[in-house]
Amino acid sequence: MTREAGAAVMGWVLAGSVAAGGEAPAVARRHALMPVPSSLEWAEGRLALTPAVVAALRGHRDARLQAAVDRMVRRLESRTTLEFARGGGAPDPDRATLVVEVAGPAPAVPRLGEDESYTLDVDGTRALLRAPTVTGALRGLETVLQLVEGDRGGWFLPAVRIGDRPRFPWRGLLIDVCRHFIPPDVVRRQIDAMAAVKLNVLHLHLTEDQGFRIESLRFPRLHQRGSDGLYYTQGQVRDLVSYAAERGIRVVPEFDMPGHATSWLVGHPELGSAPGPYEIARTWGIFDPSLDPTREEVYRFLDRFLGEMAALFPDAYLHIGGDENTGKQWQGNPAITAFMARRGLADAHALQAYFNQRIAKILAAHGKRMVGWDEVLHPDLPRDIVVQSWRGADSLADGARRGYQGILSNGYYLDFIHTAARHYLVDPLPAGHGLSEAEAARVLGGEVCQWGEFVWPETIDSRIWPRTAAIAERLWSPREVADVDDMYRRLARVSVQLEEHGLMHETHTGLLLRRLAGTAAIGPLETLAGLVEPVKVYERPRLRPATQFMPLTRLVDAARPDSAEGRRVATLTDDLLSSAPRLDTRREALGATFTAWRATTGPLRRLADQRPSLREMRPLVDDLDAAAALGLEALSFIEAGQSAPVDWRDHALARLAEAAKPKGEVEIVVLGPLRQLVVAASRLGDVAMLSPAEWKRTVVEQARVPEPK
Amino acid sequence: MTREAGAAVMGWVLAGSVAAGGEAPAVARRHALMPVPSSLEWAEGRLALTPAVVAALRGHRDARLQAAVDRMVRRLESRTTLEFARGGGAPDPDRATLVVEVAGPAPAVPRLGEDESYTLDVDGTRALLRAPTVTGALRGLETVLQLVEGDRGGWFLPAVRIGDRPRFPWRGLLIDVCRHFIPPDVVRRQIDAMAAVKLNVLHLHLTEDQGFRIESLRFPRLHQRGSDGLYYTQGQVRDLVSYAAERGIRVVPEFDMPGHATSWLVGHPELGSAPGPYEIARTWGIFDPSLDPTREEVYRFLDRFLGEMAALFPDAYLHIGGDENTGKQWQGNPAITAFMARRGLADAHALQAYFNQRIAKILAAHGKRMVGWDEVLHPDLPRDIVVQSWRGADSLADGARRGYQGILSNGYYLDFIHTAARHYLVDPLPAGHGLSEAEAARVLGGEVCQWGEFVWPETIDSRIWPRTAAIAERLWSPREVADVDDMYRRLARVSVQLEEHGLMHETHTGLLLRRLAGTAAIGPLETLAGLVEPVKVYERPRLRPATQFMPLTRLVDAARPDSAEGRRVATLTDDLLSSAPRLDTRREALGATFTAWRATTGPLRRLADQRPSLREMRPLVDDLDAAAALGLEALSFIEAGQSAPVDWRDHALARLAEAAKPKGEVEIVVLGPLRQLVVAASRLGDVAMLSPAEWKRTVVEQARVPEPK
Repeated sequence: MTREAGAAVMGWVLAGSVAAGGEAPAVARRHALMPVPSSLEWAEGRLALTPAVVAALRGHRDARLQAAVDRMVRRLESRTTLEFARGGGAPDPDRATLVVEVAGPAPAVPRLGEDESYTLDVDGTRALLRAPTVTGALRGLETVLQLVEGDRGGWFLPAVRIGDRPRFPWRGLLIDVCRHFIPPDVVRRQIDAMAAVKLNVLHLHLTEDQGFRIESLRFPRLHQRGSDGLYYTQGQVRDLVSYAAERGIRVVPEFDMPGHATSWLVGHPELGSAPGPYEIARTWGIFDPSLDPTREEVYRFLDRFLGEMAALFPDAYLHIGGDENTGKQWQGNPAITAFMARRGLADAHALQAYFNQRIAKILAAHGKRMVGWDEVLHPDLPRDIVVQSWRGADSLADGARRGYQGILSNGYYLDFIHTAARHYLVDPLPAGHGLSEAEAARVLGGEVCQWGEFVWPETIDSRIWPRTAAIAERLWSPREVADVDDMYRRLARVSVQLEEHGLMHETHTGLLLRRLAGTAAIGPLETLAGLVEPVKVYERPRLRPATQFMPLTRLVDAARPDSAEGRRVATLTDDLLSSAPRLDTRREALGATFTAWRATTGPLRRLADQRPSLREMRPLVDDLDAAAALGLEALSFIEAGQSAPVDWRDHALARLAEAAKPKGEVEIVVLGPLRQLVVAASRLGDVAMLSPAEWKRTVVEQARVPEPK
Repeated sequence: MTREAGAAVMGWVLAGSVAAGGEAPAVARRHALMPVPSSLEWAEGRLALTPAVVAALRGHRDARLQAAVDRMVRRLESRTTLEFARGGGAPDPDRATLVVEVAGPAPAVPRLGEDESYTLDVDGTRALLRAPTVTGALRGLETVLQLVEGDRGGWFLPAVRIGDRPRFPWRGLLIDVCRHFIPPDVVRRQIDAMAAVKLNVLHLHLTEDQGFRIESLRFPRLHQRGSDGLYYTQGQVRDLVSYAAERGIRVVPEFDMPGHATSWLVGHPELGSAPGPYEIARTWGIFDPSLDPTREEVYRFLDRFLGEMAALFPDAYLHIGGDENTGKQWQGNPAITAFMARRGLADAHALQAYFNQRIAKILAAHGKRMVGWDEVLHPDLPRDIVVQSWRGADSLADGARRGYQGILSNGYYLDFIHTAARHYLVDPLPAGHGLSEAEAARVLGGEVCQWGEFVWPETIDSRIWPRTAAIAERLWSPREVADVDDMYRRLARVSVQLEEHGLMHETHTGLLLRRLAGTAAIGPLETLAGLVEPVKVYERPRLRPATQFMPLTRLVDAARPDSAEGRRVATLTDDLLSSAPRLDTRREALGATFTAWRATTGPLRRLADQRPSLREMRPLVDDLDAAAALGLEALSFIEAGQSAPVDWRDHALARLAEAAKPKGEVEIVVLGPLRQLVVAASRLGDVAMLSPAEWKRTVVEQARVPEPK
């Protein structure tokens, strides 16, 4: 048996708790596990997967564990096309191929901090998954499925010894089901996918200005008037909570208050800080309607409502939002300002802290601990609340020093349309955080956030996946696991495996492009869609006003956040420029790529004429055509070894800068490499004067960033 | 306004009830309607679709109609990316863009023979949809959605006058939810798609040897022991029935008896004709277990069970199956043979007729009319039963002469994996049927059948759609609408529109190929999958024994029934050979095609080495490689104008015959055209002696059919 250790030296060397050891790996093998386990040692040999595979339990057994093993077997069959033997009665673990040995149960309701560890030992005769609890076994079963490999000899599990446990206990995904309602079956497949990458908290953002998405039996006007009929029944909630618990996932509900509360007030205007009437918000942004924190009837209402919800959601934590309250309704209400004066509450933040203290007490009475966004942090609040930070790791560390537990979400906002790589490198506890051990322990983990302004059921999978798998790795694996290229290699495999759960992230692009084109013949359109990404952060509503009813079926919705083609062209360009002074590597591949882009522009222009929904693509096609032509010209200069004239360069950079402006709320992702090529082509003479490395650094890398827009 | 009439002269000329008129169309326009309406007259002008579009009701209004209009508006938005104005209150029909004018309601429970007619008039200012009933309006709304077109001027409805009504009143889709369970959400999307192509009967095949798929509160052991926990609850059934009724679709349940009944007997062996015990059947075929038709307790049980189901399913018809009863259990049971002797029942068919008479009486008492397969036809049965014919139009006509109503399913078995064209040309009442008007009226229509041995939720859409849309047209449109090329043109558009309902028929291939390949890079595999089809009729289980647990994730499951690439190559070949003696048309396109095929074989062989689930593809790749090489050789002979030697031809035909043998339960679909090319290449000298048409007919067309296997 060989041992591998050390961080992040490409895929098959793993970070973690393995004892240090410098020897070279005798079994050189790359794995595709995501998240990467704490420790992994390869061994010689393999466990063949054949129709004779039998999975058996040893030790503790219960219905949840058996169901998880059965699901694993079905997925293994579906992926391998093997049909395993089925017989009567429980299989004999001493003769089984896969043995799951669990010491004891896990809490029926998953709990923060429970033991999720497991070990997995595979040799030529059997795979042995051992865990102290059922939850650990659930995590390990997902590792087994990711380990499966094939070659001419058939399907197999490579011989290996894995020891694994999470770095952080709170690894969540927030889904905003308010801006657009997300039906239960779509949520269910997110839960499956979360389990596949070892996330353990589903945070449902259930109330918002734009919708009240949960049935209240005590106050039915809340969902009846606040949701357009689009809400979860309590039966559906119970089903979702139980579906998640089966997979070892907690469900934390959020009822945003006192702000973000318009939809509450449509049915219950008497709770508001201004008289009303109120209507469901149909646009995006921060709105003024706010619960009135000065009236006892509001607390009586919230006590009854939160009591109902506390019984419905068994998790020990309940999220009260608390973010982005403008305070304007409070300032405009004399009774409220008088209340503040009486109580000596200096400002809206102080009044909100008063409100939060009252709510914390109500929650405590119902057996819940409170979670809230950064804004809830206030010296008057008890130390047992959990702060979810949209502000960042510094804010989180600050809270931890002051005694508050926290989870990070800054850096994990999927709606910002950043790359997986960018999210991946955000760490809740970055190296050099400077916290004491006790303080660091208060950083519980993080939550990916899928805000819902620009997703609906048909598109949400493509925004959440596969990027969330990279963040899941950040929250589970050792900090040192941080090789971006290797992350992308594994992410590509995991992404395809996630489709086993019915997720539509891979099918989504073709689906929308066929609808846009009105035909299944979408080759050129796929090329274009692969070269653009939606605009980032909050640019989209700035470029075009949006409403809740706006169809999310445009090119910007078909485009995906993390262009693989963009990465490929950047790598080709980097390889080419790194081959200075000969500059030959990858020249042909780049030339063929640019030629292929140009070949799509004729069909795309015709399509834009036929399909009004694609008319907005017209200027993008012109940009792509021009950019590809410039790329080919740059390659010609490079091939000839003759520096391009300055006026050509200036014209080219100006045209690329024009192309860098978003159109139709998407932007072309390959302009950085093209700028580099243009600059390089204009400085070919410099290669003789500078070392190739200097040339690349000083001449070309400064061109990497596109012009500011 | 111009008038078009006459049958099937390519797309924009329409068959139907339009008054004859020979003038050439002044507005030459092709539509993409499916099914083709009874009459259509184009007019000058167009109705622009802009964000100002408003839909309004006039005349009768009810919740079902309003919901249908709302759904139509959402689909129109999703397809056009336009967001239409939304305001408070009901829009004014005098100022609306789309006016839906309905004279009166339709029955809340859809009914056989109700009025489904509508008219649609579009001019430059508004579209007016008029219908005597809500059901007619539902049909017309689908036509509106199919009429939408776009060009540089934007989205629009072309000015048109349409009058439409169905040819047959019973237009059904049978889904076998027993061999593999099909969950409610998957059924719901079939209902949406059925509505889109104007089908009006969902036939749920609910009980089988392999599963009892419906909850019985009176006899819970039926579903508890007969279904592996995979069944519809009564609540789910009510939801499905109501979902279908909202769309003007009847739900006819089938409880197959006395044969195909193994799953009943697992929980209730006392109903059987042999002692038991029984287990759910796990393989496919015809099994012996049968209800005992001689014991009164069996009828008491069925009375109570069918009474429960009659209340659950509001349709006036109830299907009792009645097919494929082997009679072996009866022959082997002395009590049953004694009963037959006492009653003078000569054989199993006579005993089954006795059983059916009893059941018909029970159904009548519960207010239901009986439907059964061909086998139920017997002189002793009442004339008010409906016969569903798997035997064919002759059997149907025979029944009609004897006074029985009937529906055709022979020719519409989707699991036979025939082309849409083949199904499309099967007519329940073919020209020259020889029936009197009264007899012909007894032919109520037909039902597409999706038997479930080789589909599960992930693949079923790809088997039902888009082919079922072509059969839907056969059942709705005038008999003369029968142009296969034009059907395929429209089918391609409708297929993409059907994806709006969440159907996975277009995404399914990529999904399965990614899983097989373990990566999203599946270009060569897509090429191969596009060139093969699953084997036909009942070949699949003959080639490889199958069970209910067999994963349906192989290449044969990814392959689709109606290869567009096969049609394309056949057309190219036909064009080439029709250009004799020059034989130049399409030569380059064919050459490029064959070269592209050969280029995939290297990557495919490597993939087969990496993925054990694709190893079975290896001989197919060899066949494709050889066939493409022979095609290129044939083209070389043709280009040179020199007949190929006889021994080359013989070798080539032998190799193609080898390639025609199924491998991995799929077959290559382009071998017919290749045989033609090979034969043509070997007979080039004959073109000089024969007229080109004679040459093509006598020399080449005889080579069209592949060698028998």
